[in-house]
Amino acid sequence: MPIAIAHLGPTGTYSETAALNYAQSWQKQHQQDFELHPYSTIAQTLQAIANQQADIAVVPVENSIEGSVTMTLDTLWQLDQLQIQQAVVLPIVHTLVSIAPNLEAIQTVYSHPQALAQCQTWLRINLPTAELIPTNSTTEALQHLSQHPTTAAISSERAAKLYDLPMLARSINDHPDNCTRFWILGADLSSEGQHSSLAFSLLANQPGALVKALQIFAARNINLSRIESRPTKRSLGDYLFFIDIEANMKDMAVQSALLELQDYTEKLKCFGSYNLVSIAPSA
Amino acid sequence: MPIAIAHLGPTGTYSETAALNYAQSWQKQHQQDFELHPYSTIAQTLQAIANQQADIAVVPVENSIEGSVTMTLDTLWQLDQLQIQQAVVLPIVHTLVSIAPNLEAIQTVYSHPQALAQCQTWLRINLPTAELIPTNSTTEALQHLSQHPTTAAISSERAAKLYDLPMLARSINDHPDNCTRFWILGADLSSEGQHSSLAFSLLANQPGALVKALQIFAARNINLSRIESRPTKRSLGDYLFFIDIEANMKDMAVQSALLELQDYTEKLKCFGSYNLVSIAPSA
Repeated sequence: MPIAIAHLGPTGTYSETAALNYAQSWQKQHQQDFELHPYSTIAQTLQAIANQQADIAVVPVENSIEGSVTMTLDTLWQLDQLQIQQAVVLPIVHTLVSIAPNLEAIQTVYSHPQALAQCQTWLRINLPTAELIPTNSTTEALQHLSQHPTTAAISSERAAKLYDLPMLARSINDHPDNCTRFWILGADLSSEGQHSSLAFSLLANQPGALVKALQIFAARNINLSRIESRPTKRSLGDYLFFIDIEANMKDMAVQSALLELQDYTEKLKCFGSYNLVSIAPSA
Repeated sequence: MPIAIAHLGPTGTYSETAALNYAQSWQKQHQQDFELHPYSTIAQTLQAIANQQADIAVVPVENSIEGSVTMTLDTLWQLDQLQIQQAVVLPIVHTLVSIAPNLEAIQTVYSHPQALAQCQTWLRINLPTAELIPTNSTTEALQHLSQHPTTAAISSERAAKLYDLPMLARSINDHPDNCTRFWILGADLSSEGQHSSLAFSLLANQPGALVKALQIFAARNINLSRIESRPTKRSLGDYLFFIDIEANMKDMAVQSALLELQDYTEKLKCFGSYNLVSIAPSA
């Protein structure tokens, strides 16, 4: 039976590229076929595992320009038993797609709000009067093009080719070092690799509680590579924290840190240990 | 001459309500008239001060459900000399606006992505087949209604009344405790109040650097009410931090903390001290 991989859709999004990369290396290693299943939201993609519609789910977690993908963090906090199997870093190269003869003819630009934000300087200089219209995904933006020579969309080069649409300008991101980190999640206990992730809410809103929690790792020389706060959604000013550490969950130091951390936390979730894979820009 | 107040527009958004609240108390205190100037983006609203088009700028900074408004933090980091004059907490009550005779007739719902996200459970139960379409603001969503009895928009009650549109359902937020914090910013040095905000990037990406920076405040019993990380946009994994403390910038303990903090920071920005005003739900 092929392995079922859920990803944020539709076909042609950057999440699909990350999913495809994982699927192909899985196929090589396990001699097992795969099926990709696009879902229209991050929540649905992750719930596909709980609903046993998928073995693996691929979702974006962080972009180097726009920061955290908060829907991924919030959904992970709510769901149970999801473990990170791998992290994938993918370079993001945005392309202006249009059937217009030239830039002068373009009056509207469709894309996902993050893509519009990531190209805002380019748009201001090259299409100063164009109206910017948000869509649910970079690929959905392409659906507005076929009949209108005055519209353009921002998407990946892969999506433009997939839907056989002409590219008017390439690499239009304001920051050339634009990349997105994805998490490959599954229900299997994940314990290989030198990257680990956890999340916690603090026991009480007491002065210095977060600092005490972070000191537990610092005292053991465990490096924190990232800290992200999210609202608990109970009241303004009440947060939970997502933390990435550079160590394996099975390490003695990490085990003892997690034990001590329980003295300060109301709820503590571990998402396992995993390796990080970087995809080359040409992929 | 009236005081010029820039806010995230258009007219009828929650930012305008926060701006109006500040303007009216300013008018009472200083016997000075005011003018509200709506801008279409957060960046333009804040730049209005630098461009001397406005004395005051009002922007959202954090919602109790959706978390930080990242565009506000990123723009503040880039601009110079903006100081927080006041924080305003406003209850958010979403309303379904439509000329449709009943819910059954509705096929599409327009709103800002944050509003759509904040009502997602209500929408799933009451409008399970409706297509959700993102717009640039809750008020912009109302422009899609006038001729189409199959469309609805999510906006504030105030906007519905302002544009004279019927409300089909009120208080449709999934979390009743939904509120947004706004910052009232200006060029004047701000030094009154027991809330202060600052932001910094760390000197080097060395193990425990963030913990050391936070310990400086903990060692002086200065309570951190919030920490938010944002990408520096240089490379993935490189962050800057926004911190709110419960103390006045002129306090001896804070002054000495800021001095020590400079040993760990590459760049340190202080946004001043200010008071927090809460607006009642009926306002």
